[in-house]
Amino acid sequence: MTSPLPLKHRCATLFREIQSHICAALEKSDGVAKFRSDEWSRPDAQGGDGGGGLTRILAEGAIFEKAGVNFSAVHGVMPASFAAKLGAKEQELPFYATGVSLVIHPRSPLVPTTHANYRFLELGDQAWFGGGADLTPYYLFEEDATHFHTVLKTACDRHSPEHYPKFKKWCDEYFYLPHRKETRGIGGIFFDYLGRDDGADPEKLFLLAKDLGFAFTEQYIPIVERRKGEQYTDAQRHFQLQRRGRYVEFNLLYDRGTHFGLQTGGRIESILMSLPSLVRWDYCPVYEPGSGEAKLVEALQNPRAWA
Amino acid sequence: MTSPLPLKHRCATLFREIQSHICAALEKSDGVAKFRSDEWSRPDAQGGDGGGGLTRILAEGAIFEKAGVNFSAVHGVMPASFAAKLGAKEQELPFYATGVSLVIHPRSPLVPTTHANYRFLELGDQAWFGGGADLTPYYLFEEDATHFHTVLKTACDRHSPEHYPKFKKWCDEYFYLPHRKETRGIGGIFFDYLGRDDGADPEKLFLLAKDLGFAFTEQYIPIVERRKGEQYTDAQRHFQLQRRGRYVEFNLLYDRGTHFGLQTGGRIESILMSLPSLVRWDYCPVYEPGSGEAKLVEALQNPRAWA
Repeated sequence: MTSPLPLKHRCATLFREIQSHICAALEKSDGVAKFRSDEWSRPDAQGGDGGGGLTRILAEGAIFEKAGVNFSAVHGVMPASFAAKLGAKEQELPFYATGVSLVIHPRSPLVPTTHANYRFLELGDQAWFGGGADLTPYYLFEEDATHFHTVLKTACDRHSPEHYPKFKKWCDEYFYLPHRKETRGIGGIFFDYLGRDDGADPEKLFLLAKDLGFAFTEQYIPIVERRKGEQYTDAQRHFQLQRRGRYVEFNLLYDRGTHFGLQTGGRIESILMSLPSLVRWDYCPVYEPGSGEAKLVEALQNPRAWA
Repeated sequence: MTSPLPLKHRCATLFREIQSHICAALEKSDGVAKFRSDEWSRPDAQGGDGGGGLTRILAEGAIFEKAGVNFSAVHGVMPASFAAKLGAKEQELPFYATGVSLVIHPRSPLVPTTHANYRFLELGDQAWFGGGADLTPYYLFEEDATHFHTVLKTACDRHSPEHYPKFKKWCDEYFYLPHRKETRGIGGIFFDYLGRDDGADPEKLFLLAKDLGFAFTEQYIPIVERRKGEQYTDAQRHFQLQRRGRYVEFNLLYDRGTHFGLQTGGRIESILMSLPSLVRWDYCPVYEPGSGEAKLVEALQNPRAWA
């Protein structure tokens, strides 16, 4: 039985369901704060309908200092220069893009930040899936890193044994800050252009995106539950704020999703909700050899196998 | 009488003198903290001598939370893609760049942040001066804005009556965040490529850069002295941290100087010393109409004449 609805609309529905599922789990884990919801629409270049989205933000929670989970389904005409960047001809092209994207910044430096994004894009006569999920700890607990990667690997393996190794490597390469010579975090998975040039069946990729989207809570919430009650020091908090600066550097200097949003006239507050609430930049910070801080930096300079 | 030294070396000497002059004035105004000095060298792509610089940073002062004043004189081969961005042919070209660059982030939200930069660049067979100075208040005191612009205008007018109007407009256009539809601050002056295509005498431009560099303390320190003793509230401090977020957005998303440094393998900690120590991003902040916060935003959306 095939669905009568076009794939792009089923993707939009799926991503919105994943958003609800994730927000409910985060609220439960926080125990105090609730998500606010901002429905927004986007005029296209001619002032007509350009789609829109639903931004959900939880701020100043007991556990989560800032958690943003965004759904969007936007369409319009993509500028020629940006179409070329995405591998299409350098000409204006109609596009449709839908996705769910989240960034979670916990208050405790012992609870890692995480990001996930699953999206579907049509550009001219091409279409593809992209996305991934990655973990950004401030202090490295190996069992947490292993748990996160294992859940991702298990979900990927249900679809193809080739996915996880390929996506894991892609993630380490994508979330890399060349000017700092380190990765943003301890990785996860990343993929893009799936179904465009590889002959993959879009319906199977839809099931992959669905599986991964619903795996998010399983890959992240147990880590939060394990760490959220642990005590931390002011020095650890200070280090967390410094590391958040690297997160900002990555998102503003390199992140394709951020640049895509800014280039296509997306809703600024929804695009930049990925930035942490409180951040520090100190000149030339120094960490004691063997300290938790030094161990984290070492892990970011040398990506390893976690699952 | 002409100097026996090539212009680029006299520029380097000048910029280092300006650095000393400014650091001395800032230390005096702070009254407590001193600048630390980091001399650094930069290997070129082949591991040979690529020049270097002297980074001076004052942190956690009584008045200045973070003040960075950087001198550099670097040389090497510029990547073809970046040479093209600077208006040269798309080919690798030898370059020499020297400049003084500063960003000052005061602790009090009533004292404005400021930035200045004067530089000389040789690229292949072309050479030019660039630079400018601009003010980023958190709360708008019109007399401070007028003072800042008047000192700049007076210095410019000594060289040509056409400079200030042209450079003022250029500044408003350059320090603009299209995604926020606002300027970074209330402007100042900005110029680039002086002496490259305009037939200007490089020796006269050298004197202009000298005059402007030494005018910095006069344009900024009296504002600091006027505001540094005034009381402020936690809410004003909160607003300052939010506005610093916009400063980070500009520098990482758009600033040519930052991108130049990252592209040419500059010293990361010196390039990013422009970022404030403590910064906030809140989702969709709202300001009461008529409040100091709303008035500042209004001024950034509608640049005006200050001198």
